[in-house]
Amino acid sequence: MNNQAVFNIAEICARHGITDVVLSPGSRSAPLTLAFARHPAYRGRLRVVPDERAAAFIGLGIAQATRRPVVLVCTSGTAGLNYAPAVAEAFFQQIPLLILTADRPPEWIDQLDGQTIRQRNLYGAHAKAAFDFPADTTHPDAKWHAERLINEAINLTQAGPAGPVQVNIPLREPFYPKAGEEVVYEQDVKIIREDQANAVLPPAEILDLRQQLRAAGRVLVVAGQQAGGPGLTAALYDFAAARRVPVVADIIANLRDVPAVHRQDIFLAGLPTEQKAALQPDLLITFGQSLISKSLKLFLRDVAPAQHWHLQATGPVADTFRSLTRIVRVQPAAFFQQLASFETKDYGPALGPGAPAAAPAAPDQHSGTDSSEALDLGSIPSATTTETPVTWQRADAAAAVFLEDFFAAEDQPFNEFSAFRHALGALADGTALHLANSMAVRYANILGLPTDRQIEVFANRGTSGIDGCNSTAVGGALAQPARPVVLLTGDVAFFYDRNAFWHNYPVPNLRVVVFNNHGGGIFRMIEGPRQQPELEEFFETHQALTAENLCRDFQLRYFPVASFDELAAALPVFFAPEGGAAVLEVFTDSQANAAFFEDYRAAVKTAFS
Amino acid sequence: MNNQAVFNIAEICARHGITDVVLSPGSRSAPLTLAFARHPAYRGRLRVVPDERAAAFIGLGIAQATRRPVVLVCTSGTAGLNYAPAVAEAFFQQIPLLILTADRPPEWIDQLDGQTIRQRNLYGAHAKAAFDFPADTTHPDAKWHAERLINEAINLTQAGPAGPVQVNIPLREPFYPKAGEEVVYEQDVKIIREDQANAVLPPAEILDLRQQLRAAGRVLVVAGQQAGGPGLTAALYDFAAARRVPVVADIIANLRDVPAVHRQDIFLAGLPTEQKAALQPDLLITFGQSLISKSLKLFLRDVAPAQHWHLQATGPVADTFRSLTRIVRVQPAAFFQQLASFETKDYGPALGPGAPAAAPAAPDQHSGTDSSEALDLGSIPSATTTETPVTWQRADAAAAVFLEDFFAAEDQPFNEFSAFRHALGALADGTALHLANSMAVRYANILGLPTDRQIEVFANRGTSGIDGCNSTAVGGALAQPARPVVLLTGDVAFFYDRNAFWHNYPVPNLRVVVFNNHGGGIFRMIEGPRQQPELEEFFETHQALTAENLCRDFQLRYFPVASFDELAAALPVFFAPEGGAAVLEVFTDSQANAAFFEDYRAAVKTAFS
Repeated sequence: MNNQAVFNIAEICARHGITDVVLSPGSRSAPLTLAFARHPAYRGRLRVVPDERAAAFIGLGIAQATRRPVVLVCTSGTAGLNYAPAVAEAFFQQIPLLILTADRPPEWIDQLDGQTIRQRNLYGAHAKAAFDFPADTTHPDAKWHAERLINEAINLTQAGPAGPVQVNIPLREPFYPKAGEEVVYEQDVKIIREDQANAVLPPAEILDLRQQLRAAGRVLVVAGQQAGGPGLTAALYDFAAARRVPVVADIIANLRDVPAVHRQDIFLAGLPTEQKAALQPDLLITFGQSLISKSLKLFLRDVAPAQHWHLQATGPVADTFRSLTRIVRVQPAAFFQQLASFETKDYGPALGPGAPAAAPAAPDQHSGTDSSEALDLGSIPSATTTETPVTWQRADAAAAVFLEDFFAAEDQPFNEFSAFRHALGALADGTALHLANSMAVRYANILGLPTDRQIEVFANRGTSGIDGCNSTAVGGALAQPARPVVLLTGDVAFFYDRNAFWHNYPVPNLRVVVFNNHGGGIFRMIEGPRQQPELEEFFETHQALTAENLCRDFQLRYFPVASFDELAAALPVFFAPEGGAAVLEVFTDSQANAAFFEDYRAAVKTAFS
Repeated sequence: MNNQAVFNIAEICARHGITDVVLSPGSRSAPLTLAFARHPAYRGRLRVVPDERAAAFIGLGIAQATRRPVVLVCTSGTAGLNYAPAVAEAFFQQIPLLILTADRPPEWIDQLDGQTIRQRNLYGAHAKAAFDFPADTTHPDAKWHAERLINEAINLTQAGPAGPVQVNIPLREPFYPKAGEEVVYEQDVKIIREDQANAVLPPAEILDLRQQLRAAGRVLVVAGQQAGGPGLTAALYDFAAARRVPVVADIIANLRDVPAVHRQDIFLAGLPTEQKAALQPDLLITFGQSLISKSLKLFLRDVAPAQHWHLQATGPVADTFRSLTRIVRVQPAAFFQQLASFETKDYGPALGPGAPAAAPAAPDQHSGTDSSEALDLGSIPSATTTETPVTWQRADAAAAVFLEDFFAAEDQPFNEFSAFRHALGALADGTALHLANSMAVRYANILGLPTDRQIEVFANRGTSGIDGCNSTAVGGALAQPARPVVLLTGDVAFFYDRNAFWHNYPVPNLRVVVFNNHGGGIFRMIEGPRQQPELEEFFETHQALTAENLCRDFQLRYFPVASFDELAAALPVFFAPEGGAAVLEVFTDSQANAAFFEDYRAAVKTAFS
């Protein structure tokens, strides 16, 4: 059969433990479609999504949730270009995707045949690599090449940092087996496994890092976007406790079980410059990817720590705060574990005569003198009423009190910031929370998560686009059908990606809350555009849609609300697990939202001044 | 003002006669937004479309209709990647687009800031060029550079072949002028005009081409996709008449006023191989871009003319039929004009002593012996009932008779092929007809246009994607508001690009006919997938949507029909010019459509055997 090498791709993927495939219909891609459709490993895990832009983000959502590579299959032509936004997001968010683009054979490129573009290296700088599958695989060397490169591509999707890899697959007719002809998977396909070792720091480097840590004065840990995990949580907990180091984490850092500072977006926006000086670290230690909090970024850029270490096992490292001095090539969990204490138990003998012998901890003025206080958010001093110096923990605790007080005020007009807080408060334990870009992820980062529930947070912060937020959540819901998956989003992101729902796979565990202010309300909250006469027409851009017809189209239960009472009444019904997929549309007024958010900003200034 | 060089872009565009801008909202792109929003040349011609994929296709549709470059403006991040499908279509369809992508300054790339990707050369092999606008323009050399490269980019969009050009524009804060601050356009901006000359063939080459033409035996002209124009039409008419050469043109070749052969999709599919041999050219002359007719492509590949000349002034040339022997670098109109007759009136003196002196035309057995018959479709001999040799014109005329007979049969079930014919027949004179990819453009190419009306045909055959068919038609309707613009499309293409309607610009002159068979019905008409057990789930992919809710969302009048009677009743109301934008949804059954199309294919075989 002329497409045996193509059928074998499914076998190799299955042997590598890849469980999910998202494909978009096409003729040129038919041999790939048949390869996966007939392979027993992909029964019920091969999903068809016609809009390739949505398909790729759905694949990304599945890969996020399963932490395994997902295969995308598309036909030739612009199909693969519609993947590009999700591919870029996967590249920067480090999500493994294996992208199989069907193509005409090389001799037919640029010959005016239909659905033919220049597909080699289609994603340019946004794929980890682009492989050219051989057009002819009859020669044994070509067969070896074909099988080898699929292995290389799969392994590369996962080798740190993970990311998207394209394999462009030229296909000649006939695309289809004859009626009744079997698709056979060769069982002796080549498999190359790649085992990733966990890097550990060599003793001499540990010694050096310990000496630097001890000498550094005030140390601050800041976590960027990452998936979290028990190993990291435990190690970071130990490190922070032993060294009395504050850990600051945005909502997308998924550090629920570390008593980290989360409300930096609030107090850093409020504290006067001279008080913020007390928070300045001498040594900043970071790990993970991007931050949401603009206040935090600006603060760190402004204070310019003398040292900034970034922990990252592989891949390019950003100098996010313009103060990067050292890159430590190790998994963050290993770093924190190996440097949790001053004791040198494990590595003592190797450290040589100059090693420090269980020196007492240097007083850490930065985070207070009481290690229990440093990690206990239960005791809440107020940064606004005391003369004690500001610490990260005190400021965080004060911000928590401030938030409670601010939202407890009577007579609030109905607005999306308050409604957002109610929605967050109603999330069930175990929820996978997807936060759309633009205002949703910002509101959530200010408000924080309910502390009494385990909630995992996803957001497309690799590129911060609004183009695939629905689809990513749909992918998450498909991948974990037993788990509640909730998307909080604005109207522009929601309608932009409406084709996320255009397929035949129910997502009864998905709930979408759409905060509909009929436009890009974010522009009304930014100083610059708000002052321009072009605000309404060219920035905010009023859009008239409501989700009602979309819900009709896709059989989603629909809950429109426009007041606190309606919201409160709808939330329990909406979130009830037995109901099936649903959209809660929260209608607010853009001007009221902007005014309320201004009030909030003013209150922050007052509270922390 | 720090963005003076950016404001000047709007001035340079205006001076180059660019009239239309499509932008998508963003913050990083704010200086570009303001530049165009405040420039008097763009009042009412600057349109905001939130989904960048749709925005780019709308821009492409405007550029198609106006035959001028259109400016696209987007913010940083994946916004520009959503342009990619339209950019590839523009590249292969040779439509001029000036793409201005706002970016962070180079030092902030890969630093984990939001909406930051690697935007340099974002479209890779699918843009004619990618320019990097300078991040700092205070130095006079940099100002010269900035203004020069915008001129270069604009000129390049139009230099043959036309196409898309990216300018990546790094922008530093502040993005906005202070409240009340004026945006000023410098009047001494640098302007570089580029005048395109019309190439004429040198006398020696004309002589040679004439000799070759005379010696060639049977000559055939085949026109690919092109916009047409009176100059070409007249020259081609003269050439064909003088030389008794048949001209074969797909519907997208826009050769309405040349008595060309149009029904090749029918008779080439039906004629037995031995009869087709009579149609074989010795010399094939082609111009334009792609063909729709697969029968024609296969025929020409099969018969492999001894010579194939392709006429194209600039750019890469495809060897579509694997028989290319000569590329003539001239505009087709100039070629046909210069070679219309054997007389050498104009160039006589230059030809030298060996020139042929008004030799009588070599008998053209290929197209018959009577030049009036060769060009007159009014006299219709039947290829099916006569023993005279098949000619292109006779076969075409026979196909016309066949079509009439075939559709005159009683008791046809309601099906999309027949419904499509009724819709084509109801088009108004002067219509701009957009044909979506997949089956719509194929049906139209078989059925042909009403011969008594001027209809201009558009189709995204550069890449043959379904991803922007609605948006391209919307762009066409916006660009020519006084003209009826009609899109004929299938359901998958229609719903794929539903965000084409998501903006605030009414298109009262637009009519969309959606042939809804609830899936990719094309797969049921192709031999290969039809025989696979995966047909319904993985190829045809049933989709449940109807256009009703979409019409509610976007205030489009909605006409659902499911029978010939309903269709006949709806068409005049639907097409009535005063009614405003409307969708006519033709519901058919995929299996009935496939069966009817099989009947058609069988009838063709019978009629021409």
